Amino acid sequence: MRMNSKSLPRCTWFVTGLLAACLALTPSLQADEGMWTFDNFPSKTVAAKYGFAPSQSWLDHVRLSSLRIAGGCSASFISVQGLVMTNHHCVVDCVEQLSTPKQNFVETGFAAKSIAEERKCPDFELDQLVEIRDVTNEVQGAIAGKTGDEANKALHAKQAQLQQGCGSDAGVRCDVVSLYHGGIYDLYRYKRYTDVRLVFAPEFTVAQFGGDPDNFNFPRFDFDIGLVRAYEGDKPVISHDYLRWSRNGSKDGDLVFVSGNPGGTSRELTIAQLAFERDTGFPSDIPETAEYRGELEEFITRGSEQMREAREQLFFVENDFKADFGRQGALLDPQFFAGKQQEEQRLRAAVAADPKLAADASAWDDIAQIQRVRAQLFTHHVDGIFNYFSAPLHYAITLVRAAEERAKPNTERLPEYTDQSLVHVQQALSAPVPVYKDLEELNLKLMFTELQRDMGADDPFVRKMLGNESPEQLAHRLIVGTHLDDPKVRENLYSGGQSAMAASNDPLIRFAASIDDDLLAMRKDYEARVDAPTRSAAERIASARFAVYGTSVDPDATFTARLSFGSVKGFEDAEGKFVQPYTTIDGLFHRATGAAPFVLPESWLKAKATMNLALPMNLSTTNDIIGGNSGSPLIDRDANVVGLIFDGNIFSLGGDYGYDAAKNRAVAVDSRALLEGLRKVYHMDHVVDEIEAGRQ
Amino acid sequence: MRMNSKSLPRCTWFVTGLLAACLALTPSLQADEGMWTFDNFPSKTVAAKYGFAPSQSWLDHVRLSSLRIAGGCSASFISVQGLVMTNHHCVVDCVEQLSTPKQNFVETGFAAKSIAEERKCPDFELDQLVEIRDVTNEVQGAIAGKTGDEANKALHAKQAQLQQGCGSDAGVRCDVVSLYHGGIYDLYRYKRYTDVRLVFAPEFTVAQFGGDPDNFNFPRFDFDIGLVRAYEGDKPVISHDYLRWSRNGSKDGDLVFVSGNPGGTSRELTIAQLAFERDTGFPSDIPETAEYRGELEEFITRGSEQMREAREQLFFVENDFKADFGRQGALLDPQFFAGKQQEEQRLRAAVAADPKLAADASAWDDIAQIQRVRAQLFTHHVDGIFNYFSAPLHYAITLVRAAEERAKPNTERLPEYTDQSLVHVQQALSAPVPVYKDLEELNLKLMFTELQRDMGADDPFVRKMLGNESPEQLAHRLIVGTHLDDPKVRENLYSGGQSAMAASNDPLIRFAASIDDDLLAMRKDYEARVDAPTRSAAERIASARFAVYGTSVDPDATFTARLSFGSVKGFEDAEGKFVQPYTTIDGLFHRATGAAPFVLPESWLKAKATMNLALPMNLSTTNDIIGGNSGSPLIDRDANVVGLIFDGNIFSLGGDYGYDAAKNRAVAVDSRALLEGLRKVYHMDHVVDEIEAGRQ
Repeated sequence: MRMNSKSLPRCTWFVTGLLAACLALTPSLQADEGMWTFDNFPSKTVAAKYGFAPSQSWLDHVRLSSLRIAGGCSASFISVQGLVMTNHHCVVDCVEQLSTPKQNFVETGFAAKSIAEERKCPDFELDQLVEIRDVTNEVQGAIAGKTGDEANKALHAKQAQLQQGCGSDAGVRCDVVSLYHGGIYDLYRYKRYTDVRLVFAPEFTVAQFGGDPDNFNFPRFDFDIGLVRAYEGDKPVISHDYLRWSRNGSKDGDLVFVSGNPGGTSRELTIAQLAFERDTGFPSDIPETAEYRGELEEFITRGSEQMREAREQLFFVENDFKADFGRQGALLDPQFFAGKQQEEQRLRAAVAADPKLAADASAWDDIAQIQRVRAQLFTHHVDGIFNYFSAPLHYAITLVRAAEERAKPNTERLPEYTDQSLVHVQQALSAPVPVYKDLEELNLKLMFTELQRDMGADDPFVRKMLGNESPEQLAHRLIVGTHLDDPKVRENLYSGGQSAMAASNDPLIRFAASIDDDLLAMRKDYEARVDAPTRSAAERIASARFAVYGTSVDPDATFTARLSFGSVKGFEDAEGKFVQPYTTIDGLFHRATGAAPFVLPESWLKAKATMNLALPMNLSTTNDIIGGNSGSPLIDRDANVVGLIFDGNIFSLGGDYGYDAAKNRAVAVDSRALLEGLRKVYHMDHVVDEIEAGRQ
Repeated sequence: MRMNSKSLPRCTWFVTGLLAACLALTPSLQADEGMWTFDNFPSKTVAAKYGFAPSQSWLDHVRLSSLRIAGGCSASFISVQGLVMTNHHCVVDCVEQLSTPKQNFVETGFAAKSIAEERKCPDFELDQLVEIRDVTNEVQGAIAGKTGDEANKALHAKQAQLQQGCGSDAGVRCDVVSLYHGGIYDLYRYKRYTDVRLVFAPEFTVAQFGGDPDNFNFPRFDFDIGLVRAYEGDKPVISHDYLRWSRNGSKDGDLVFVSGNPGGTSRELTIAQLAFERDTGFPSDIPETAEYRGELEEFITRGSEQMREAREQLFFVENDFKADFGRQGALLDPQFFAGKQQEEQRLRAAVAADPKLAADASAWDDIAQIQRVRAQLFTHHVDGIFNYFSAPLHYAITLVRAAEERAKPNTERLPEYTDQSLVHVQQALSAPVPVYKDLEELNLKLMFTELQRDMGADDPFVRKMLGNESPEQLAHRLIVGTHLDDPKVRENLYSGGQSAMAASNDPLIRFAASIDDDLLAMRKDYEARVDAPTRSAAERIASARFAVYGTSVDPDATFTARLSFGSVKGFEDAEGKFVQPYTTIDGLFHRATGAAPFVLPESWLKAKATMNLALPMNLSTTNDIIGGNSGSPLIDRDANVVGLIFDGNIFSLGGDYGYDAAKNRAVAVDSRALLEGLRKVYHMDHVVDEIEAGRQ
């Protein structure tokens, strides 16, 4: 069992066995490929193809209008009063957290009729990228010549030092970003907004219309929008940089851009790393996701309260499953994989032919060797699971570790406990997020069961973890007995530090304290034997790639700000039929059968007679995006909003490994449907007026 | 979604990535490889290695003492009064069916204190193989020169005709068995026993001690035995051929045989077929098994009644998952797969070098081409799913089809509705097997959901099947409204034939009737475009293999009677530590933590003080077996029982594709532990006396 580090909401990619005619696998750029950093955007390429070159001020304006949602999405300011547009599925956590058994906003939707009705999300962070600084020499210098744990320690110390020098108040966030897998290190400084209030969310059924069957498909008919507002000092922020709304929307063939935060791609990985994913990672991970899905599917049938608690979680699990299944499909496609092999062979041949690159030539073999270690350590690489599979357990581990780490100097701590990182840690511990004990017991039981299965019943760690209890018994005892669902309890334990940990008899704290040394030892071993040598080899490959192909290549996605260009465009489906790039509101009503997941809420059925049914509902574009881009604005050459990215089509789902210009499509809600729905269905006239106020 | 045709209880194989030192992939036989038919047993090979050559009368005696359980297991007569030994997991269906909410024999065990207390299993069939006749010329002659649907029709007609000529009363069963994938056809005639009564079953917890974590592992400590008795005319049958109990049991190194019915192997498949399994079949099937597992895991937590209903089902699903995961692991192992490729290349080179075999040379390419068709039809190959995923739906489809098919001449029917096959059809329809509606609703909902997912929400068949209902709604309506859970209702509908079908307003009958033409059309298409040409090509490969390697090769397993030889032997585990071939009863008590699945029932804890704890509990042997062999007797050179096969070790789990003499091990309950448990724990002295009466 493993938590996928790319487990981000929506918009990750799927590939069936249909990638025959593919792909832009060579670094020579084709078509609209690329998730470009804002400081290396290929304006000339865009100008050559589309007759428009984004200027530096255009790029700065778009970057400052764009936002990252810390949980794994993208967003943008769309008014001067800090109004923020993103997807429904990017705010659904907040919607669910504000709900109660008596008032389920996930089901009914939420629409603040005035500023006063906007409600603070318990745990929400928006980041605005204000500065990018190259720190490659400092970081590479710090780790040069070091290996294993020494290299990791040096890297963490340097990161902590750079963060500290960048800004220390809670309104600033600084991240050291590794691009090209260590080829370049940048320091990204963000303005951070943590008082974020819910303005609008539609009903789940229309936001996710078509559910799992339609997910990653097009034609599509979703109203996947959520609106929040950034506040400071209890007042809406004045957002000087924001995106205006397009007056006319887009049309077929128009140049369009997507500004957002793609979560991760694997296009620069070596064949050995891809084979590891294909032969070890996915075959283990996908069935575990499926098992969890099955548990949740059955859990929600117990009653309406269980449905409320777990529906959103099930939605994300379904999405992860479909995305991972598609990524696996890409790697299992023999032609696709052969293409990746050829790409690697070409680069290796070029490296072998250039004596100046001799030092880099062994990097691929080094990585292949590391995969054998990785396979050995695979089932014991579990620190992520313990931190992310169960919210209460994560609280417990966080409290235990924070107490330990805060006793150390800043530069000697784990990266997630540096002074700057402790800002989030405290925020997350204090957030009044509901904990559903029945659901958490299910989560923990499954986690213990899968650990026992993967590591083996006789594994010393498993024996220590379970003692003489079964997974069911241990999960039950820990969840029933804990008080960590209370934010006040967590805050007190946090401020009490190590003595509070020692004194606590909360069963989850005792459990976490009993196994944390083992968890950290396994993590350290993995990081020293896998992460450090991989970073060292990948750095050499990146430097070789720069030497051979130059630097006009986009780096693998890293959940940082990227800009992609493309155009509104249809595509051929699996049967060779051409799919038009726009659907209509009429099409939405036509597809509604009345049975889940093709049900429309009452609000839409009532409003139908008043709506302009011919307006575009969703559209497809050639932009190169991936999971994490959810909520990104789709903008035209004037940087005006023409849509809201929320997904991709079925063919684009191997985009993790390569971009297929012929068939990959991004999928967005059309800007015209957004306003039509807000006004006619939800009567949010004050918000529409606010959006339109800035229209040009 | 697909029902695995090899979905048989236990003893299928698993391979981790550890097959480095493998395998007996060449047809030149090594070591103890082989699942031999009784008419082609390599007595000389056994004599050369072990100094004992089974005689014809020895072979006949063992064959006639051995039994097949129609549901997918093996068994044997162990007394002259028709007492039959098999595994607990091979009778657990019956144990569950005889249970009620108030008396759960799965949990408490069942022990008839006398003949009078033995209870008839609702749906149980034992088959004793009495004759093997070669019908290759007749079958191959019937289909020669025909292709596609014509070939299938000719084959089915010939099978029906051969069956008809073999015996028609309910006490006879005749199957046309295809060996070497069509290289040889045999007619197997069985004596059939359908009045089978439960004599003994231990508690589930000790039968499956260690549960899923210990499954397919050794050292092992299971008391996985079930005893039934065959009756005729309401009296125990006199079984002249039965296996005597060994006086001293076995010891390390002893020659041992396993007589049973291995369900299926894939050792003769081509690389293209194996690649299909690896890249298409398993990646689709395994996650669906995992999802079902998750649903069941959550279902059984609802209450004790749900636990009673679904625990056994969950057990088999867990087993299928582990077995398939292991089979996939074997195919994903690059060295293992390369070995299979070399084996194929050697045979193809030999064929290419022999002008007499020119006609066979294209068979491999033909099969590769068929895999492309197979991939296209994969998601629509669903007839098996509709027939096996839900018991009430299976009843409905059976009734609809039986009415249709019985109106046709015998030789023109689907094979499962020939006159002879109708004996089982009627038996299954009449069997008073309980139907759990809540569990069946779960089954149907999942089935509809997965079909919608795999075939697509816009697929015409899916739209017809679901209409305007969701999978949940349709499943609920069908199950709540049906009366097919009543055997009397089913019997009446069966005897009413076509007019009863037309008149029935049972929702499941109406549903089955509405989609059955589509199901049969999809099936016919698949059989014509995949099965028929595959059979034709495989026949040529078989003939080429005979020509190159001779006929001293065992055929792939087909759930028919086979005999394997080997010896009691330990093995090296994954860490290189030697594992002894015997565990002890003491070890069982030592491993019990008191938490599931390492819980011992009260009966064992009470009896502990009286038991000889030093006696062997389970043992490992080199016999080449696979799923379907569950319940097979382990016998010595005197054909005396020294154990009861119930599983294999972790290394043997790639046995589907190849036998690894170094590490593959069969796992059995030791004969000494069996008697000790029956006497000391269960006080079944009359049964032990009956068993020992024939001892030599």
